[in-house]
Amino acid sequence: MENIKNTRTEHDLLGTRELPADALYGIQTLRGIENFSISKFKLQDYPLFIHGLAYTKLAAAKANNALGLVSDEQLKSIEAACKDILDGKYHDQFQVDMIQGGAGTSTNMNANEVIANIALLHLGKKAGEYEFCSPHDTINRSQSTNDAYPTAIHMGLYASHLKFLPHLEALIEALQKKGDEFAHIIKMGRTQLEDAVPMTLGQTFYGFASILRNEIKHLNEAAADFLVVNMGSTAIGTGICSEPGYAEKTIEALKEITGWEVSLADDWVGATSDTSCMVGYMSALKRVAVKINKICNDLRLLASGPRCGFGEINLPARQPGSSIMPGKVNPVIPEVMSQIAFKVMGNELCVTMAGEASQMELNAMEPIMAQCCFESIDLLINGFDTLRTLCIDGITANEEACRNEVKRSIGVVTALNPYIGYDHSTYIAKKAMETGRSVYDLVLEEGILTQEDLDTILDPKNMIKPVKLDIKARK
Amino acid sequence: MENIKNTRTEHDLLGTRELPADALYGIQTLRGIENFSISKFKLQDYPLFIHGLAYTKLAAAKANNALGLVSDEQLKSIEAACKDILDGKYHDQFQVDMIQGGAGTSTNMNANEVIANIALLHLGKKAGEYEFCSPHDTINRSQSTNDAYPTAIHMGLYASHLKFLPHLEALIEALQKKGDEFAHIIKMGRTQLEDAVPMTLGQTFYGFASILRNEIKHLNEAAADFLVVNMGSTAIGTGICSEPGYAEKTIEALKEITGWEVSLADDWVGATSDTSCMVGYMSALKRVAVKINKICNDLRLLASGPRCGFGEINLPARQPGSSIMPGKVNPVIPEVMSQIAFKVMGNELCVTMAGEASQMELNAMEPIMAQCCFESIDLLINGFDTLRTLCIDGITANEEACRNEVKRSIGVVTALNPYIGYDHSTYIAKKAMETGRSVYDLVLEEGILTQEDLDTILDPKNMIKPVKLDIKARK
Amino acid sequence: MENIKNTRTEHDLLGTRELPADALYGIQTLRGIENFSISKFKLQDYPLFIHGLAYTKLAAAKANNALGLVSDEQLKSIEAACKDILDGKYHDQFQVDMIQGGAGTSTNMNANEVIANIALLHLGKKAGEYEFCSPHDTINRSQSTNDAYPTAIHMGLYASHLKFLPHLEALIEALQKKGDEFAHIIKMGRTQLEDAVPMTLGQTFYGFASILRNEIKHLNEAAADFLVVNMGSTAIGTGICSEPGYAEKTIEALKEITGWEVSLADDWVGATSDTSCMVGYMSALKRVAVKINKICNDLRLLASGPRCGFGEINLPARQPGSSIMPGKVNPVIPEVMSQIAFKVMGNELCVTMAGEASQMELNAMEPIMAQCCFESIDLLINGFDTLRTLCIDGITANEEACRNEVKRSIGVVTALNPYIGYDHSTYIAKKAMETGRSVYDLVLEEGILTQEDLDTILDPKNMIKPVKLDIKARK
Amino acid sequence: MENIKNTRTEHDLLGTRELPADALYGIQTLRGIENFSISKFKLQDYPLFIHGLAYTKLAAAKANNALGLVSDEQLKSIEAACKDILDGKYHDQFQVDMIQGGAGTSTNMNANEVIANIALLHLGKKAGEYEFCSPHDTINRSQSTNDAYPTAIHMGLYASHLKFLPHLEALIEALQKKGDEFAHIIKMGRTQLEDAVPMTLGQTFYGFASILRNEIKHLNEAAADFLVVNMGSTAIGTGICSEPGYAEKTIEALKEITGWEVSLADDWVGATSDTSCMVGYMSALKRVAVKINKICNDLRLLASGPRCGFGEINLPARQPGSSIMPGKVNPVIPEVMSQIAFKVMGNELCVTMAGEASQMELNAMEPIMAQCCFESIDLLINGFDTLRTLCIDGITANEEACRNEVKRSIGVVTALNPYIGYDHSTYIAKKAMETGRSVYDLVLEEGILTQEDLDTILDPKNMIKPVKLDIKARK
Repeated sequence: MENIKNTRTEHDLLGTRELPADALYGIQTLRGIENFSISKFKLQDYPLFIHGLAYTKLAAAKANNALGLVSDEQLKSIEAACKDILDGKYHDQFQVDMIQGGAGTSTNMNANEVIANIALLHLGKKAGEYEFCSPHDTINRSQSTNDAYPTAIHMGLYASHLKFLPHLEALIEALQKKGDEFAHIIKMGRTQLEDAVPMTLGQTFYGFASILRNEIKHLNEAAADFLVVNMGSTAIGTGICSEPGYAEKTIEALKEITGWEVSLADDWVGATSDTSCMVGYMSALKRVAVKINKICNDLRLLASGPRCGFGEINLPARQPGSSIMPGKVNPVIPEVMSQIAFKVMGNELCVTMAGEASQMELNAMEPIMAQCCFESIDLLINGFDTLRTLCIDGITANEEACRNEVKRSIGVVTALNPYIGYDHSTYIAKKAMETGRSVYDLVLEEGILTQEDLDTILDPKNMIKPVKLDIKARK
Repeated sequence: MENIKNTRTEHDLLGTRELPADALYGIQTLRGIENFSISKFKLQDYPLFIHGLAYTKLAAAKANNALGLVSDEQLKSIEAACKDILDGKYHDQFQVDMIQGGAGTSTNMNANEVIANIALLHLGKKAGEYEFCSPHDTINRSQSTNDAYPTAIHMGLYASHLKFLPHLEALIEALQKKGDEFAHIIKMGRTQLEDAVPMTLGQTFYGFASILRNEIKHLNEAAADFLVVNMGSTAIGTGICSEPGYAEKTIEALKEITGWEVSLADDWVGATSDTSCMVGYMSALKRVAVKINKICNDLRLLASGPRCGFGEINLPARQPGSSIMPGKVNPVIPEVMSQIAFKVMGNELCVTMAGEASQMELNAMEPIMAQCCFESIDLLINGFDTLRTLCIDGITANEEACRNEVKRSIGVVTALNPYIGYDHSTYIAKKAMETGRSVYDLVLEEGILTQEDLDTILDPKNMIKPVKLDIKARK
Repeated sequence: MENIKNTRTEHDLLGTRELPADALYGIQTLRGIENFSISKFKLQDYPLFIHGLAYTKLAAAKANNALGLVSDEQLKSIEAACKDILDGKYHDQFQVDMIQGGAGTSTNMNANEVIANIALLHLGKKAGEYEFCSPHDTINRSQSTNDAYPTAIHMGLYASHLKFLPHLEALIEALQKKGDEFAHIIKMGRTQLEDAVPMTLGQTFYGFASILRNEIKHLNEAAADFLVVNMGSTAIGTGICSEPGYAEKTIEALKEITGWEVSLADDWVGATSDTSCMVGYMSALKRVAVKINKICNDLRLLASGPRCGFGEINLPARQPGSSIMPGKVNPVIPEVMSQIAFKVMGNELCVTMAGEASQMELNAMEPIMAQCCFESIDLLINGFDTLRTLCIDGITANEEACRNEVKRSIGVVTALNPYIGYDHSTYIAKKAMETGRSVYDLVLEEGILTQEDLDTILDPKNMIKPVKLDIKARK
Repeated sequence: MENIKNTRTEHDLLGTRELPADALYGIQTLRGIENFSISKFKLQDYPLFIHGLAYTKLAAAKANNALGLVSDEQLKSIEAACKDILDGKYHDQFQVDMIQGGAGTSTNMNANEVIANIALLHLGKKAGEYEFCSPHDTINRSQSTNDAYPTAIHMGLYASHLKFLPHLEALIEALQKKGDEFAHIIKMGRTQLEDAVPMTLGQTFYGFASILRNEIKHLNEAAADFLVVNMGSTAIGTGICSEPGYAEKTIEALKEITGWEVSLADDWVGATSDTSCMVGYMSALKRVAVKINKICNDLRLLASGPRCGFGEINLPARQPGSSIMPGKVNPVIPEVMSQIAFKVMGNELCVTMAGEASQMELNAMEPIMAQCCFESIDLLINGFDTLRTLCIDGITANEEACRNEVKRSIGVVTALNPYIGYDHSTYIAKKAMETGRSVYDLVLEEGILTQEDLDTILDPKNMIKPVKLDIKARK
């Protein structure tokens, strides 16, 4: 008949606190939870960031072990702990709010404490027996929040970048496929929303694919910055509390663990307060957001109608469009994609402003930057998959309507420029506008070109690419 | 031995679907959930928005009942259903993603379906027996998503505004109290981060309180727009499908239900595609964010140190400041507040861009705008409470350090201007700077003023407000 | 035969400098010019800001005179000097860059020096004889840059606001007039770019007018902050160097000079570092920018074509639309207006970020905020006049095309909801979509309504407002 | 007694107009001037953009000549005309507003007309004799505004980028030099504005230099996009009106003229409506702006004082700091730099929003994007030169004050961690805080380390980099 004690006691600079006996986090995590009850964004909802923390802590442990600062037994247990985490275990112990003061100290300590305690379990000890494996002196050994936290963010974001790319590529592929499917459909191009000259619907979709494809290079350029880390610079970039060679060994370990080309920042003081990799990556995402918005806007324009709009394409119906207008089908998927794009742009501003708040040897605003980056990538992944599977893949074309546009357009007069000159073309265009008649009829009537020549010039296949036709105007 | 059927079937424009028999949402909610698997922001996490939906639907039901379009029995069951929701029941049935295409149709239909089904239960029917109370023809009667959804947002945001104000006011009060507490402490003011002239620490905190207090007026001005709604304008602002008098009756009902001065937009077409109330309210929140950031930055500056900074005040220690630097205590609470401010500013941009995307008779981007507004208010409420209770209330002053600053400053020379002129003061200041000596000694040495006069001028209480002293320079 | 000396010498804290003998500015202006060779934005290009400086300095001189600190003769000459400036003279002497460090000291000193020197001329003295009227001890008497500069900005921006309103109102009036002109033209409304239900083209333009009209209230609310000034708070808000009563007397003088309801900030310390009136006014301009962009986008959509677009209206042709496509006429005026809107939004962000940089007792970033505000107002004035005179006034409608849209639309089925129910309407809509047939024919064929009833329901005048028709479905 | 006719007549789609006989621009420039009286930003104020136009038009002429579409004589005169322009002549003829509707048609036609007329002069003809060299059929031959205008912007911005880099590099060099100068000065580092651990003042400046240096790579990556052009894609990306091989020949000519690695966009339709190179370059400038702001903020913090601030460095006095506070010297140069940074960030948002407005085959908002890019680069160039010459180069250090900070700091306790453990260090730090005593004394008193070991650990040169000391705690 004994009282089982179901709490344990931990202490820190500010005093002592009770924790649930089976908690794998410790007193500093508890303080972090209590201090920052801010948002719905909890660390446990960001698994790739948790992976980043595991990579970082494991790399440090390996370096410390090589330097004799962490024992072989400790390292083994830390390896086991990090493996557990990378296998998706114990994520529920990462409970601090993503939005926190302290430049990430709560997150770093949450990781230190959880890893120390899991390691203790592997060592056959109980949680809290830090004399065998300490959050500070073992797990955080030779580190500061100021190098471990940004390094973990970098690793987590690089992993997110790698996860993101295939979703973008799948979307590009889907657009490209639609380009193939629609390559034979002639339609009017529009500039400034006004009828311009003919093109194919395939060219429209190839264009969409191409502008997104160009962003992969920029995303990779921006993400490359994540692979440059300040591990070893410790508190402010001087490397205090670390031994010579530690930084290099940690980088080697990180490379080995992740398989990525991780490298050490060349100026540690500069790197430690610098968060521009996140500003830059968000800007790269913003470029993508700008483009996806243009694509979604165009899809909505091209699908406008069904009877009083452009009506060139049909988006697949996903749901009844209206609670009042029966039969209405709306472009709901491009609409949700655009909203994601706006959220990403808002997040980019947040990251910029937070990035601009760096002071002296640190930027205390990193946590919100990380939250915005991870959130943005997640939203874009979901948005791209939704857009591709629920919209792009199912788009069909109104081929005849597209062809008719070209027939009745005035813009085809442009094709005559090289043969009859801009002024003469202008005269025909003006007359067509005023009379409502077709360019074709007017040109013939004026006797400027033979019917055969005119047919050649206005042959769709001659209007959608550079051509050299052996034609001369008759006057 | 019979199979209990645990699903029910519903149909819409696109076909039929099975739903769990006890689901209180219906087929369109289901489609919404499937179409928009986008974010972590679910409708059920926004209780005041759900309230806004309940207010709106109840008001419409009352107006429809008065016009004979909804029966007394139906109304009674709808009232019961809305009361349930306002009592916090069934929020788990509001499952659609806040970020959705379709201009809010999924949210509106989620509300229509859930209210219809709860009402059916009150009528003694089963969920799905829509012939007795239909999501479309009863709950959404005389409405479109395009008036009901923005009206619900307006109501939800106005409720959020009313909830927000006391948290802001409590913070102002806390700052004001610190002003009283520190009213007697003389210290140096700083402009452009350079020593300026004396003031009291109380004046600093009164200033903080005053700039926030000024925002209440602007917040109220911005929030007033939420009370102007387009109910009755239905699909595009023409009021199609509604009867004359319906709009006015709905407004009356809304006023009665909420107790707020709700009014009808004067131009329905203009109002239906306009979301500037959200742009405006976010801008008002941004003004607050700008100011709270200035206050938090100042707190961090004033508390910088402990030995190599301004060191005028002490923020309460909330947690060990560093994973590497023992004994360090950091201004973690102002830091988290600033990050919230950045997130709010990012959200403001998102809302602006979404607001700018309005086209023709609707702005399909409203859902993300609503999400950003609700999120921002929630974050600020949490941030203000955290800032007040975990920081402001516990701030202490380093009175002696503050007083010593004034003594050794050169800036006090400014107080001499009215008596000895700017040029003469400049001469003294320059000499003080070059020699490291005090202004006091130099003035006496120059014989410009008697010691008595000088003491009078430099008496702290004469330097912190406009004064008229009967003093003349001796040369 | 002597050398006429065509320079004069002035001195300050940093030393002495030669100035052109006839320069009406002085040494500190010269330093300002040399230090800040930054932009194309010179003070002399902002006449209403120069007016604001003149108002402020004159008001201070009057208050100082009432307190016996400025002689009657000095006041008289200062009055004459300020009158000269308000008459448009000597603006070329205001040479400093609008973008400057020093929180406006260069601008304030430029004004102090020029006014002192003009006053000296009126006193029959020569420029530079500051013993009779000094930039510091007379013109800047009882002032600091930190109260005089923001007060001058406030006055200048309030004047700009008053100048701006009529241009906005003229635009609203022009839109309203088009509403009248097009009140009889029935057309299809669109939501989410998809055909919705009928409306009049007049309603479109009334809607445009209404959303802009609503902004006047918000602009006035935001501008009201400009009338609250911190004059008398001097360097940091404590009023050092000013006598009791001075602030109130200056406010009285400002009210008298401007005729505006100027008032004194209630908390001087808070007010002195606060620039939120500019943040708020830019946000109000941003709301206007968001709306004008929506209007311009809609104009471009409605005018899209001529043959492959919506084609409901024609914008007046302002120039050949294309260097390659003969006969093309583009919506160039709405396009330039939108670009102005984007610039204004960019400026708003700049002002926000600068506003957020306030530190301790001052915000040193005010100069760029002022530049952005003045620039934005100027751009909007030019944009609105251009939009009104070169576009709105000349818009014509394609009445028949608009009417035909309604006839062939499926959206009119919505008008049947109240009589045949949403589900039945959906069935008709779906059939119309699939068969390409008209709603009218299908309804008759189904025998749901009599032809007479159907004609009544679909009568355009019954579809553009709430109606009660005594109609019952036959099944 | 004859009337000298001093005008000439030109015509276009809209009619005829009189021009001054000696005007080198033509009717479309005139219409552009009249339509767009918007801003103070005139084309003639952007010389590198005018160069870009000259490069583009000359390249097109060469390609057209190679294809037999422009005669040798015409080409020779066009070459002479473009050389004139590149030599700085005739810039006053480029009179259109940078902010214009029409997607740059006015600018393109301004260039076409001016080049045609200068060429005519070289041909011995009079301005306006377009039958010998036509703005449309010769200068604009095979082109559209939609390829020529963005290509000219790209060329102009790439030239601006090349101009910009040396100014940035000179600033980096100046910071690096200060790093060398201050390499021996020991001081306290600060994180979260709180005292952290020691570093050298040199490390601070090396850090500044390093973070800027890292941006050169990103600027170059972003600028590389300018070298990809859509010349030959003409109106909408299909190359209508151009002959096979024309695009490639133009690119070859552009490469030869500029000496840059210009290449052709791979997807012409995608490229023609895409302006992300400007979005991307502005984002790259924004990264620089974020960093320069951090540097300027730090300079102001480090120079805060003179007696009540951090006081580690002195910025050169540029002007009397205050109109009221004698002797005050303010950090006016970093302040003006920060304001430029804010303006650049505002411009970045403007460019983003304009970039997002791309529709179908064109983005009509390019003109404001170009204006913002050119303006931002100009402002940064002026800002960097100002910052370098008027501030950085003249910074001096307060060496003794810096050293004293370290002596009295508690943060040095961090250096003991590896030897006595985090918990023990915390105990010492806490005691130092409470008693006001020094870490040094307390450690000795506790007998934890020998004085010799303690001296070794706390030797400044051992605290500013990773070290391995053979020291063991005594308990």
